[in-house]
Amino acid sequence: MFVDRLIEKIKDRGNPSVLGLDPRMELIPPCVRDGLGNSEEDLGTAVFRFNRALIDAVVDVVPAVKLQIAFYEAMGIEGLKAYRRTIEYARGNGLLAIGDVKRGDISSTARAYKQAHLDGPFACDAVTLNPFMGYDALEPFIKACEEEGKGVFILVKTSNPSSGELQNLVTENEYLYIKLARKVAGWGRGAVGRYGYSSVGAVVGATYPKELAALRKEMPGTFFLVPGYGAQGGGGKEVVNAFNPDGLGAVVNSSRAIMGAYLKDGKGEGVTLEEFKDSARREAIRMRQDIMKELKEI
Amino acid sequence: MFVDRLIEKIKDRGNPSVLGLDPRMELIPPCVRDGLGNSEEDLGTAVFRFNRALIDAVVDVVPAVKLQIAFYEAMGIEGLKAYRRTIEYARGNGLLAIGDVKRGDISSTARAYKQAHLDGPFACDAVTLNPFMGYDALEPFIKACEEEGKGVFILVKTSNPSSGELQNLVTENEYLYIKLARKVAGWGRGAVGRYGYSSVGAVVGATYPKELAALRKEMPGTFFLVPGYGAQGGGGKEVVNAFNPDGLGAVVNSSRAIMGAYLKDGKGEGVTLEEFKDSARREAIRMRQDIMKELKEI
Repeated sequence: MFVDRLIEKIKDRGNPSVLGLDPRMELIPPCVRDGLGNSEEDLGTAVFRFNRALIDAVVDVVPAVKLQIAFYEAMGIEGLKAYRRTIEYARGNGLLAIGDVKRGDISSTARAYKQAHLDGPFACDAVTLNPFMGYDALEPFIKACEEEGKGVFILVKTSNPSSGELQNLVTENEYLYIKLARKVAGWGRGAVGRYGYSSVGAVVGATYPKELAALRKEMPGTFFLVPGYGAQGGGGKEVVNAFNPDGLGAVVNSSRAIMGAYLKDGKGEGVTLEEFKDSARREAIRMRQDIMKELKEI
Repeated sequence: MFVDRLIEKIKDRGNPSVLGLDPRMELIPPCVRDGLGNSEEDLGTAVFRFNRALIDAVVDVVPAVKLQIAFYEAMGIEGLKAYRRTIEYARGNGLLAIGDVKRGDISSTARAYKQAHLDGPFACDAVTLNPFMGYDALEPFIKACEEEGKGVFILVKTSNPSSGELQNLVTENEYLYIKLARKVAGWGRGAVGRYGYSSVGAVVGATYPKELAALRKEMPGTFFLVPGYGAQGGGGKEVVNAFNPDGLGAVVNSSRAIMGAYLKDGKGEGVTLEEFKDSARREAIRMRQDIMKELKEI
């Protein structure tokens, strides 16, 4: 069960926060690009080295990494090679890898996406999915949660400003995201692990604390992936609503705050690789403390 | 304007149907794989050759091709190289290329996806998008319709069996897909071309003729991309509802029926490349006739 492995990693690290690896070229310091030029291949290598340095810095602090595939697709073939290498490196070093791909398409296409992102070339432990097309677009992935030890996080209430446009529509006297929450909880019933949580999880943003609290109540056995911590505005006080009284039930993602911690530490172009890693590690530990001080236990 | 170029190609070909390139290995006959082995690289080359043969067969019959990226992602790096080469080959031969990527994510990520699929390594003329996260997830793409001659087709009512699960929820006394239709029409107002259609289009499946007719009425200036012709069950009689009285307003996609036409023609493993192309061409022409006999003019 994916969710059991995730929970055990969280307990081991004493930390429900995950490192988001969303590489932007402007965040990659010269020390990482040492000896590399500007060819597509070299830029891909720079991205992998950047991710590797971050993983090395926090490998014993976080349970998982989350890769936003858009930033790799934007770099083309070499970017996707870096995506694949990063997944392999993270998993090889004992971290769970979550592919933030937000896919969702009709059944035969869903099977192809499942092949791509759970079984084959870009295989992660779990992926994010978009529910707009309904159950059959998610089914191959949900079956993989039940039968192949994989996990999914289905978008329920996202962190962006326009998220309410569809998600907060009222239908049959309740918000669409509440209705969707019940569906997701139902879809997950066949994939419940030993801690009472399902490997069919939900994406719920930290930027809407009221909705987050309502959803926590609506789907107590669903594990949440919570974006929007740090750079998007949510802090420990906001994300605490994502957790159950057992201190479990959510992982919180931070990308930019950890990746760019060296800039906040006053380091710039001249940062060394060790300083870069130290800053990332300190920020990851600070984030762990920020969240853990709000949770009674884990 | 993307939509103007699309309409002009449709008029030139006398055909509003597009070739879907969703390669499945089991559809690729031995003649296409001649001299190739089973390495990832060779399989990628086989996919490109398969697509190239199909494009060569119908280049003067169809206005555009649509590539479902999931099938390429499932093959990993070499699959994505074939995706890129196919786009370049189609555009180089005067066809418009639509990337069926159904992306949708928050603003900075949306910009990365736009870079990937409209500007950079996998640049198409238009892409499909998922509206679940609301306007800000679509904005960089819509701006590209207004300012950069690109096009989008936003999911409104999809062709799959579960599509009603969210899309047919009733909200404020109307179906969600109708509400969404009005949003999409509004988002497209800044990208209207000389024929009165917007480059911000909609995906509307052929498998729900009633909804198709309602949406045609609701958003007369929105161009539709209609999947579900042929293998999914819709024929010329069903898809006619996607068109306006001017004979315009939609492109209809067929993938499996054209790709696998040689099988329907009784050819199997022993099919020659010329026979394979002839079958695909005949099916593309048959489809054109099937749709055009329902339309008074174009």
